Amino acid sequence: MSEVFLKTPRTQVRRLPQRGAYDRQTAYAILDEGLVCSLGFVHEGQPYVIPTGYGRQGDFLYVHGSAASRMLRTIEQGVPVCVSVTLLDGLVLARSAFHHSMNYRSVVVLGTAEKITGDDEKLRALRAIVDHLLPGRWEEVRPPNDNELLATSVLRVPLEEASAKVRTGPPLDDDEDMGLSCWAGVIPMTLTPGAPLDDPTLAPGILPSAAVESYRR
Amino acid sequence: MSEVFLKTPRTQVRRLPQRGAYDRQTAYAILDEGLVCSLGFVHEGQPYVIPTGYGRQGDFLYVHGSAASRMLRTIEQGVPVCVSVTLLDGLVLARSAFHHSMNYRSVVVLGTAEKITGDDEKLRALRAIVDHLLPGRWEEVRPPNDNELLATSVLRVPLEEASAKVRTGPPLDDDEDMGLSCWAGVIPMTLTPGAPLDDPTLAPGILPSAAVESYRR
Repeated sequence: MSEVFLKTPRTQVRRLPQRGAYDRQTAYAILDEGLVCSLGFVHEGQPYVIPTGYGRQGDFLYVHGSAASRMLRTIEQGVPVCVSVTLLDGLVLARSAFHHSMNYRSVVVLGTAEKITGDDEKLRALRAIVDHLLPGRWEEVRPPNDNELLATSVLRVPLEEASAKVRTGPPLDDDEDMGLSCWAGVIPMTLTPGAPLDDPTLAPGILPSAAVESYRR
Repeated sequence: MSEVFLKTPRTQVRRLPQRGAYDRQTAYAILDEGLVCSLGFVHEGQPYVIPTGYGRQGDFLYVHGSAASRMLRTIEQGVPVCVSVTLLDGLVLARSAFHHSMNYRSVVVLGTAEKITGDDEKLRALRAIVDHLLPGRWEEVRPPNDNELLATSVLRVPLEEASAKVRTGPPLDDDEDMGLSCWAGVIPMTLTPGAPLDDPTLAPGILPSAAVESYRR
């Protein structure tokens, strides 16, 4: 498998091309840090963009949902999809309205979703999705039973045609604005976990695992 | 303007319908808290989902970008779009793999983007986008000049056909799993601003405004 994606006219970053990246390492680090993807598909000419959890294993991205879901029933038919993941890193406050921006890391994947049919790959994919939330969680919980497996559709999107886009650093104001008296800079933004909240039905004496206690994204 | 959205088969929440909401108040609170939207459109049969900033004023959502952008040139032709905004509130860790979930608040908007042509509405829209990042920022910075206005395309999406979807609360495990010894609960997640970082070129003595210093989302 090549270490870089196929760079096609469809995934080439046109606006501010210096922000584009086409290597798997950059894109996979973003996909592995993100928690929610935006899954785009077309149904009767209308685009839909649905937020959903996901997991990655190797060069596939996995999404799952109810076997009865309209979204999954549509995209499991082998239609083109687009999956996008964005991490917001900061608000870029320039001296001019025009140069306001955000610092971010994003990945856009184009491809065709494939429905997973074998139970073994389905279980591996569900494990990737659960462990994506919290590494090691799969080993702590009850695995899916046959009924749950039947009720769950899992799709995979090959990570072949994709690109990343990254903006970092301070605002880039025009020379003639540098004398303005307005403050300029960046407000960093971070997705921060809080202290774990016990399920109200939790039996006394059951404590969060170390992985839950020390959760960091 | 009605206080509830048109509830169409296209925006009706089918999976877990009890999580759906169709009132403007719920949806606008989510749109106003979010910073990045996922903008979906179709080009030559392929769906694209592009993350971008936005603003809301009244019953319109505004996005902007370079007049030369492929995305904006495509969607300004009056094609159907889908805009989705998701706020992640927590990881829901159940006793079974099957019941793992996330707490979130999301909005999905369907509609047709319209290109704004008048300079007055364009300026109001750009103000909404800048003030969406940081309320009051527009008054602190240099407004767009004629060249910048020309170089910027602004589109509006009417907030008419939309729905919100919200999950809150603890995991919902099956009765037969309540005796498992595994911890269950929620790890809350919050998008947290850090201390403002001065632009390295900032002149000595220029301090962040109170709005920057006390930034909270």
